[in-house]
Amino acid sequence: MRAPARVGDDTAHDTAVDAVDLRSDTLTRPTPAMRQAMAEAEVGDDVYGEDPTLVALEERVAELLGHEAGLFFPSGSMANMVGVRLLVPPGTELLADVTSHVLRAELGGHAALGGVSSRTWSDGVVDGTNRARRLDAAVPLALMAPDAGPYLVSTAAVAVENTHNFGGGTVQPLTELELLRAGTAEAGVAVHLDGARLWNAHVAAGVPLATYGRLADTVSVCLSKGLGAPVGSVLVASRERIAQARVLRKRYGGGMRQAGVLAAACLHALDHHVGRLAEDHARARRIAEACHAAAPGSVDPRDVETNIVVLATGDRPGAEVAALAAGKGVRVSSLGPRMVRVVTHLDVDDADVDRACEVLAAVLTG
Amino acid sequence: MRAPARVGDDTAHDTAVDAVDLRSDTLTRPTPAMRQAMAEAEVGDDVYGEDPTLVALEERVAELLGHEAGLFFPSGSMANMVGVRLLVPPGTELLADVTSHVLRAELGGHAALGGVSSRTWSDGVVDGTNRARRLDAAVPLALMAPDAGPYLVSTAAVAVENTHNFGGGTVQPLTELELLRAGTAEAGVAVHLDGARLWNAHVAAGVPLATYGRLADTVSVCLSKGLGAPVGSVLVASRERIAQARVLRKRYGGGMRQAGVLAAACLHALDHHVGRLAEDHARARRIAEACHAAAPGSVDPRDVETNIVVLATGDRPGAEVAALAAGKGVRVSSLGPRMVRVVTHLDVDDADVDRACEVLAAVLTG
Amino acid sequence: MRAPARVGDDTAHDTAVDAVDLRSDTLTRPTPAMRQAMAEAEVGDDVYGEDPTLVALEERVAELLGHEAGLFFPSGSMANMVGVRLLVPPGTELLADVTSHVLRAELGGHAALGGVSSRTWSDGVVDGTNRARRLDAAVPLALMAPDAGPYLVSTAAVAVENTHNFGGGTVQPLTELELLRAGTAEAGVAVHLDGARLWNAHVAAGVPLATYGRLADTVSVCLSKGLGAPVGSVLVASRERIAQARVLRKRYGGGMRQAGVLAAACLHALDHHVGRLAEDHARARRIAEACHAAAPGSVDPRDVETNIVVLATGDRPGAEVAALAAGKGVRVSSLGPRMVRVVTHLDVDDADVDRACEVLAAVLTG
Amino acid sequence: MRAPARVGDDTAHDTAVDAVDLRSDTLTRPTPAMRQAMAEAEVGDDVYGEDPTLVALEERVAELLGHEAGLFFPSGSMANMVGVRLLVPPGTELLADVTSHVLRAELGGHAALGGVSSRTWSDGVVDGTNRARRLDAAVPLALMAPDAGPYLVSTAAVAVENTHNFGGGTVQPLTELELLRAGTAEAGVAVHLDGARLWNAHVAAGVPLATYGRLADTVSVCLSKGLGAPVGSVLVASRERIAQARVLRKRYGGGMRQAGVLAAACLHALDHHVGRLAEDHARARRIAEACHAAAPGSVDPRDVETNIVVLATGDRPGAEVAALAAGKGVRVSSLGPRMVRVVTHLDVDDADVDRACEVLAAVLTG
Repeated sequence: MRAPARVGDDTAHDTAVDAVDLRSDTLTRPTPAMRQAMAEAEVGDDVYGEDPTLVALEERVAELLGHEAGLFFPSGSMANMVGVRLLVPPGTELLADVTSHVLRAELGGHAALGGVSSRTWSDGVVDGTNRARRLDAAVPLALMAPDAGPYLVSTAAVAVENTHNFGGGTVQPLTELELLRAGTAEAGVAVHLDGARLWNAHVAAGVPLATYGRLADTVSVCLSKGLGAPVGSVLVASRERIAQARVLRKRYGGGMRQAGVLAAACLHALDHHVGRLAEDHARARRIAEACHAAAPGSVDPRDVETNIVVLATGDRPGAEVAALAAGKGVRVSSLGPRMVRVVTHLDVDDADVDRACEVLAAVLTG
Repeated sequence: MRAPARVGDDTAHDTAVDAVDLRSDTLTRPTPAMRQAMAEAEVGDDVYGEDPTLVALEERVAELLGHEAGLFFPSGSMANMVGVRLLVPPGTELLADVTSHVLRAELGGHAALGGVSSRTWSDGVVDGTNRARRLDAAVPLALMAPDAGPYLVSTAAVAVENTHNFGGGTVQPLTELELLRAGTAEAGVAVHLDGARLWNAHVAAGVPLATYGRLADTVSVCLSKGLGAPVGSVLVASRERIAQARVLRKRYGGGMRQAGVLAAACLHALDHHVGRLAEDHARARRIAEACHAAAPGSVDPRDVETNIVVLATGDRPGAEVAALAAGKGVRVSSLGPRMVRVVTHLDVDDADVDRACEVLAAVLTG
Repeated sequence: MRAPARVGDDTAHDTAVDAVDLRSDTLTRPTPAMRQAMAEAEVGDDVYGEDPTLVALEERVAELLGHEAGLFFPSGSMANMVGVRLLVPPGTELLADVTSHVLRAELGGHAALGGVSSRTWSDGVVDGTNRARRLDAAVPLALMAPDAGPYLVSTAAVAVENTHNFGGGTVQPLTELELLRAGTAEAGVAVHLDGARLWNAHVAAGVPLATYGRLADTVSVCLSKGLGAPVGSVLVASRERIAQARVLRKRYGGGMRQAGVLAAACLHALDHHVGRLAEDHARARRIAEACHAAAPGSVDPRDVETNIVVLATGDRPGAEVAALAAGKGVRVSSLGPRMVRVVTHLDVDDADVDRACEVLAAVLTG
Repeated sequence: MRAPARVGDDTAHDTAVDAVDLRSDTLTRPTPAMRQAMAEAEVGDDVYGEDPTLVALEERVAELLGHEAGLFFPSGSMANMVGVRLLVPPGTELLADVTSHVLRAELGGHAALGGVSSRTWSDGVVDGTNRARRLDAAVPLALMAPDAGPYLVSTAAVAVENTHNFGGGTVQPLTELELLRAGTAEAGVAVHLDGARLWNAHVAAGVPLATYGRLADTVSVCLSKGLGAPVGSVLVASRERIAQARVLRKRYGGGMRQAGVLAAACLHALDHHVGRLAEDHARARRIAEACHAAAPGSVDPRDVETNIVVLATGDRPGAEVAALAAGKGVRVSSLGPRMVRVVTHLDVDDADVDRACEVLAAVLTG
């Protein structure tokens, strides 16, 4: 585990020095080089559109994803809320997976603040045939109701999550994304891609970011998860939609001033931390294999494509298993009644993973 | 087909005298006796709670459904919106069927006005194994996330629709309703019953209204569908919730003044039009049998439990089939791409049904 | 006081037979002739736009007010909410009088449901120089911020209330309405006229309804106040806006079925109850004069232009004065700490007014 | 004008090296020492409440303002939106000044996202007797409608802005704040203090921050204006309200991860940049005096209490005057039709002010 980094002081020690923290890849702290980049950032007032570092980041991410323009956000939740809201006017609806981050983990903001009506597909959840939430484009295409007339709710957009967080870091199949894009486009329905961890999909599947990006109308990506920047997400879309997004962002309270200090860290992350996600993936696979070896029912290692391992905890509550592991110095997240989530990231090294394998195997068989 | 009724003028003729109108049971017009009741109603200002006829209606419906109090609404949509909103504060969610009226047919008001986040179960839609949308309580119970903590959306309520409109007038199995009630109650999750056509379920299944009513925290029923009143729905719940509902109703603009003229029609309908729903059910079954005989794939008559027949139109768009039937004097609703809906009601008699059977059989095989 | 009317039974007596009820003109009950009209109404399903009586009412009100189209609503609050919402998209603002009905008496629906931001003019309230809330167009024109750019809230509409309820039934000066219309139009700002009691202004000032109507983009009028219909308001605007209003009305839950039974009462009211408002005005003036004679500070009779008398209650709380009057058989509304409101209407005759004069004079000097 | 600062590179030059930028104090860029503090900050994941630097900031600001707890926000708009929303449930109202930042400059978010109904006091705007928007507590106290019953909108809170931005940096009189607090508290109405520039009031008036803080239930302060931090506002309130605010912040999308890098700059600002605001105030006064000497009607220097100068531009549009000044190397904001705003701040030195005096005097008399 990497010590917390400060410029000029590499001796600082962790606040919880003994724990291997695998609760989330949002936990990563900026590296010394990233902090240096932040300290040197040229900045301006971004509410006036005058922060050069921020503008550089927005342009770079837009280009990477094959879109015209980008906009920086303080969180992935806000980037998703604004991205969806651009596509889904009140009175129309969003279709999404029943375990999607937008509907499960953003505190109801889409409806409470944006007035977005939503329906979800749940196929394969209850019967366990698709716990990974791998997209089957036929399902949303069958459920959507484009242009439903004045008495029914029209479907305005479908949301896809890639990789899929609660599914266990699932990389969505490119073919299905293409089928979804074709089917929705024909019907006049838009697509929002929640790409908080799109970097992981890109690295795992070898699909260019722009290939993913072009299959959606709005795409959010997160710089503060696997890439290790302290704060920030970027929404990309057409120039016209980003202009609307800028107004919405200010209304939601997401307009920041000299945010270039944050953008500098993001640019540094794009330069240095994308390729290395492969290491996180290999480590996650290693954890899955160790758990599988100890408790075969807990996880199928072939399902672990990126940096997330979802472990079934059998008869024991997830919270209990998480507490046991924490007692042995390995922190994981409890996700619902019989499940824990393990996430590898920038601040986790091979030694940490050795320890996690050992502790989790012991706990799962305990 | 019954001529439009006026007090003292039974010779008035229909505006579309030749059509048998099976688009919806909302089309029913007040009978002469009902009009007489309206004309004689004692009224007051209901915004001040002073309309005696309205109060009588609210009390009667509450008692019928086994709840403490009731409140009159200008529409079923508003009764549902307020009923759901009472149970689901912004930031929490409602679970519902993916083809539920609350999410499909109320123009997004739950989210747009009430900020209600929603997820739906879709099992059996795409694969066609449950087109009737018969409740399997295990599904919402598996999907719900009660008390999900500060980072996830907690499930506050599950909505059930009985009979299920887009499912084809399906009567929800009492056992499943009881399982849902038990499972949600244990988890601290509430139940809203969209009982717009609960009268039909009651008559078809012989289950007392109060038995259904007591399995939910809020129940809406509609007097202007099968029962034939011109306007009005009633929401029932605890006295405390109805007091909150009264404030919400005024905020939504549903507070009316001398609404006793409408309530009188509703009371008349309760006195005279509940038992006769059995006739509508028999007629719907007769239509289903005729269609099945002509085009076996169009409908399974055993699925037709109440007054709604949903017909699959095979390769032809629903709208085309509806237009053909209309050309022959029988009006039905087009419901989605390959489906039409046929609804029997108070203004449809046996001769109308004979004609509908003939025309629909011809059109389906045409 | 007129006995409650029923068709064929004119002997029914009042529920509170001894009270002269001057709390509001919303209390009026349908006359026998109005009930007859309701009983004979031809009706259809208005959600499908097929109720001929409703269509006739909407067309007639639109024509009276010089607008292209009209839409029926279950309440004046909903008509105002939808009318304002058509003009004021979320993120822009409405300017209104600080004591306006839309902001004081509609339970916050404009903001809570429609997301409408609002600012108000309060000139003359605190210093008492304009308790009648007579419009001075210069004030909203000075406050408005049309087209305020991406960082400030732009004013989208100004609301005017004519007659002004809490101001004491004030008729807004035509010259000021014209100045407001000219000034806002030049700036691209719209006008909503809350004309719940526009009939009273028309009768009192002799200004044609269409003259008032043409000075606003959306106008709501109420048929259930002075005109005596049991339920109903109509919003008029351009054909395009009314088409949008129809969708919003359904979303708000205001779509009703055979509402022609209500519309028939409204049409009857338009035929028979407009001109007679002059009687209400004369009676209100008579009450004001009696109160002034007894307690000169309570009201200036010259301020009483229509059917509302606002009485200052001096050192005593309005609620106390209202209770005293009620004890002597005259009911009035308590409006704020030191004020009561007295409203004449269809169900109040000269004898009632004699009694009111006597009781109020006694109470005010008591 | 201070060159843009970077750690280890003090030679960088301004992007618009020749302009003196007085548009806003939000334009300040972090100093080298502040950047050093950011680079060295200890951080954690604040969504989990684990960022020690952020926690230190929140605790420090809460203590300074005499409140139990604090919460960091990406913008002052979001801090205000959440602060107001905590006090004003949908259906109740906020009273505020007609030129307040919350209603003029936050893009309608209070209503559009929070459903907050609002009314404003406008006394002294149109007649020009109180352009500075100095609080007269009697006005909101007369307008408020606490506990208004089930038919009227109840006033839940009054917002005060100190210093008042569009009023010209006005310091609100402590006596009036105390009167407001006493009068509202007695009526059960809360107070929100928009203290974006409370630091300036504190320095100008010598009133302790906690004295101001204790006169309100929720207080927002901004670290990214006069204090010079790049990003961040803090809301303080009771522990219970801040717990609710944390949930709302996440719903609004304001939850950030390693925000300690931003908090470190804020802490540095609190240590080093509060007292020096007096310099900004003196410089603003100097500008006002120069403008007054050249064009006496443009400003009364006695009105300039802090770092903001609002100049009346006479017959010429504010935008024209701003453009002329910009052409001569001095940037100011155009605020409405006949007004510009000049703001001094951390990145403006005496030489800049000399130049501004000269240019503005010339332009105003030009």
